[in-house]
Amino acid sequence: MQQALIDSLRGSFQGRLLHAEDDVKPFLSDFRKRWTGTTLAVVQPDSTEDVAAVVRWCVKNNVTIYPQGGNTGLVGGNIPDSAHTPNIVLSLQRMNRILEVNPYNNTLTAQAGAVLQHVQEAAAREQRLFPLSLGAEGSCTLGGNLATNAGGIQVLRYGNARDLCLGLEVVTADGEIWNGLRGLRKDNTGYDLKHLFVGSEGTLGIITAATVKLYPQPAAQMTAFAALPDAQSAVRLLALAQQQLSASLTAFELICGASVQLVLKHAPQMRNPVATDAPYYVLLESSDAEGEAHAAERFEHLMSTAFEDGIILDAAIASSLSQSATFWQIRHHLPEAQAADGENIKHDISLPISSIPEFIERGAAAVQSKLPGGRIFVFGHLGDGNLHYNVSAPAGSDAAAYQAMRDNEKTISRAVYDVVTQMNGSISAEHGVGQLRVSSIAHYKSPLEIAMMKRIKQALDPDNRLNPGRVIAPPHSL
Amino acid sequence: MQQALIDSLRGSFQGRLLHAEDDVKPFLSDFRKRWTGTTLAVVQPDSTEDVAAVVRWCVKNNVTIYPQGGNTGLVGGNIPDSAHTPNIVLSLQRMNRILEVNPYNNTLTAQAGAVLQHVQEAAAREQRLFPLSLGAEGSCTLGGNLATNAGGIQVLRYGNARDLCLGLEVVTADGEIWNGLRGLRKDNTGYDLKHLFVGSEGTLGIITAATVKLYPQPAAQMTAFAALPDAQSAVRLLALAQQQLSASLTAFELICGASVQLVLKHAPQMRNPVATDAPYYVLLESSDAEGEAHAAERFEHLMSTAFEDGIILDAAIASSLSQSATFWQIRHHLPEAQAADGENIKHDISLPISSIPEFIERGAAAVQSKLPGGRIFVFGHLGDGNLHYNVSAPAGSDAAAYQAMRDNEKTISRAVYDVVTQMNGSISAEHGVGQLRVSSIAHYKSPLEIAMMKRIKQALDPDNRLNPGRVIAPPHSL
Repeated sequence: MQQALIDSLRGSFQGRLLHAEDDVKPFLSDFRKRWTGTTLAVVQPDSTEDVAAVVRWCVKNNVTIYPQGGNTGLVGGNIPDSAHTPNIVLSLQRMNRILEVNPYNNTLTAQAGAVLQHVQEAAAREQRLFPLSLGAEGSCTLGGNLATNAGGIQVLRYGNARDLCLGLEVVTADGEIWNGLRGLRKDNTGYDLKHLFVGSEGTLGIITAATVKLYPQPAAQMTAFAALPDAQSAVRLLALAQQQLSASLTAFELICGASVQLVLKHAPQMRNPVATDAPYYVLLESSDAEGEAHAAERFEHLMSTAFEDGIILDAAIASSLSQSATFWQIRHHLPEAQAADGENIKHDISLPISSIPEFIERGAAAVQSKLPGGRIFVFGHLGDGNLHYNVSAPAGSDAAAYQAMRDNEKTISRAVYDVVTQMNGSISAEHGVGQLRVSSIAHYKSPLEIAMMKRIKQALDPDNRLNPGRVIAPPHSL
Repeated sequence: MQQALIDSLRGSFQGRLLHAEDDVKPFLSDFRKRWTGTTLAVVQPDSTEDVAAVVRWCVKNNVTIYPQGGNTGLVGGNIPDSAHTPNIVLSLQRMNRILEVNPYNNTLTAQAGAVLQHVQEAAAREQRLFPLSLGAEGSCTLGGNLATNAGGIQVLRYGNARDLCLGLEVVTADGEIWNGLRGLRKDNTGYDLKHLFVGSEGTLGIITAATVKLYPQPAAQMTAFAALPDAQSAVRLLALAQQQLSASLTAFELICGASVQLVLKHAPQMRNPVATDAPYYVLLESSDAEGEAHAAERFEHLMSTAFEDGIILDAAIASSLSQSATFWQIRHHLPEAQAADGENIKHDISLPISSIPEFIERGAAAVQSKLPGGRIFVFGHLGDGNLHYNVSAPAGSDAAAYQAMRDNEKTISRAVYDVVTQMNGSISAEHGVGQLRVSSIAHYKSPLEIAMMKRIKQALDPDNRLNPGRVIAPPHSL
């Protein structure tokens, strides 16, 4: 029966079909091995028409579809599960062509499976910048970035993936092809379907291509690492930097002192760019349209104003690209240092920027009430109000204490999320919902909002064929 | 019967109800008097709860709702019609409070009826910029701006109304209140309902409040008026300006030579800022974070590079605010000069920026084929690919020729729109669909896109109660 289905599927489209156990294995779990799934086959179409043919075959044979890009997601949105069989994994990886770079329209069009780094490189070859940038850029795909509305380190200036998207091509749940590949800055001709598909994590349609915005490349970049007396000063430094640098401010990362210490402990070859021990550090970057000299002058002016105003205790300005890289290494090494230090409970939250100092206090109290002595590591994109807020077991904990924390994970996270929600924040800032946060979303969002989401799902995927069980809790009944 | 309905309605909410003929008249036609309508009553709620109560009353009594803001729309989206009776006009004008300005989060929250200019002023009092700016800003409302995704002169830098919106409060077609008033830059917790309501022209829900982004105020602005040899040079000047000024480039307006001549003819007190007669002019503006001296130096550098490269023939840089105002007056006086010159057929289109020179040629050929000798006035936001493309009868036409043009309007517009559509443009860039363009949208969009829009309308307003007949053609059946 299964073999008959596979044979029928293979005959329905042009691209590659994988079903041997070893071949499909890489598609059936995420890189952190938090989720695993089963599937009838992994399908890798060669074209949009091919995707549509596969979807129509699935409709006819009542098969569920799990779309997948680079399989770099952190919330299990990309992994099939056993609750919906038979299913296929629809991998877009072979649809990886850059279709057009238009420097005078500042747009690039690519197939959904194009790797983010290749998109960046194609833009750079035309002296343009595609500013979406994140840790997984060497393997994540443009389609996945858009399906999950990816963030990253330059959102402050250029916005999320959503904000960079001008047009989409989508295969619907019926297997029809919507050509919405527009390279227009303005288009008020009805409901913005593009914004509905972006961030819907493959539950409303399958993104097969996209047209995105490009920007001029900056002439120079400056990086600084500053020590601050408290979190409120970070908020003030952000306002000052925005006032002085305006859109030239392209990154503003907060790192708490404990996080810096943790990196230095686990990577002894690194050093703190500033001599001052401080409760908070900020890594900030400017991108200048004029050149090195102007960038340096503006940056030094900012830092001296901030120092005179008591907003920063100390700061180092990178004098070379390699020194800038060592500043960023501290930020980028954080996840690794945390892993080396033992397990932790991760949260990817956002808040109104002005509320972050108060949140840090209230969040700490909430964590301590559930995990006395628990250590909190706060870092993230302060310029976007986005914190990665990780909770670790008390220093010197034994295996039993770690197990107790694991058993208590949901309670601890709920305590954090309760504070976030009370302060009008979001419990998933950039990583999305996937499988991981479906029940949290259902808990924290208003019933009306959940009901509207379900109505939209029902409108565009009435058979619940696309990525079921992700984003909204099944069944998507009203 | 009608009186009984009015009495029942009056008892259902707290705010003001108007039904005397003279009182309701201003709400029943647009300022250009292109559309007029009839209504049971104009309802002006005082609060969001009041709006919800009115909607629930309408559900119960099967009454249609036409939401209205400042009644400044250009496409009839804001005027009730006689096809849907009984109906009410739901005017948000009394809900005009600024609820919060948060300078450290760079956000402002206001009720939907707040006048755009008051929103700008409230931001300015906190040394912040709310960058949405358009001709009607003294009377249009924030809710209307968002419902129609308004554009204006600074979209190039700051985006459309959509891009400035972080959160919404909406009353649904059922009379429920959705509190989506988030002041977050990142929130990946499901479908982005906000983007669905923005630009839906009141057909999916009634926006009652919004949280919008603020920016630092610029320290200095520069304005220049440049003469160019052809349209391609305007595209090249834009690329050069974006490369040199990056995000400091805040406006880039194209004006064809015929348009400038028309203004000078009808406003003899104005003069061309440059001595050169040219086929195209560009009005460009920069907003600088540093100050006058830096802004001037950058602007002069740009203009001298452009001159050396042969991109511009001549340019004037404003040396004072009042001189800058005289440059802008030419642009702002265009609609008036056109009105003084006689009727014309207006188009509000957008194209990939790189395609605009080719469009100008192909568009002219299309117009000439339907209206030999017809004059074309092209101006608009070239930085966004948005052209206002107006067609006038041949010079010296008599009343009969004007009547012939009027009779031929649809044919002429279709010829223009055919070229726009062939070149992947939009037939409504910033003014929206309203009543005016419902049939054009149905003609030019793919059946699949129209079908998806109808499914969404069906999902959120199954009784077709909200602004029926706008955006998508009734009935909204599948």
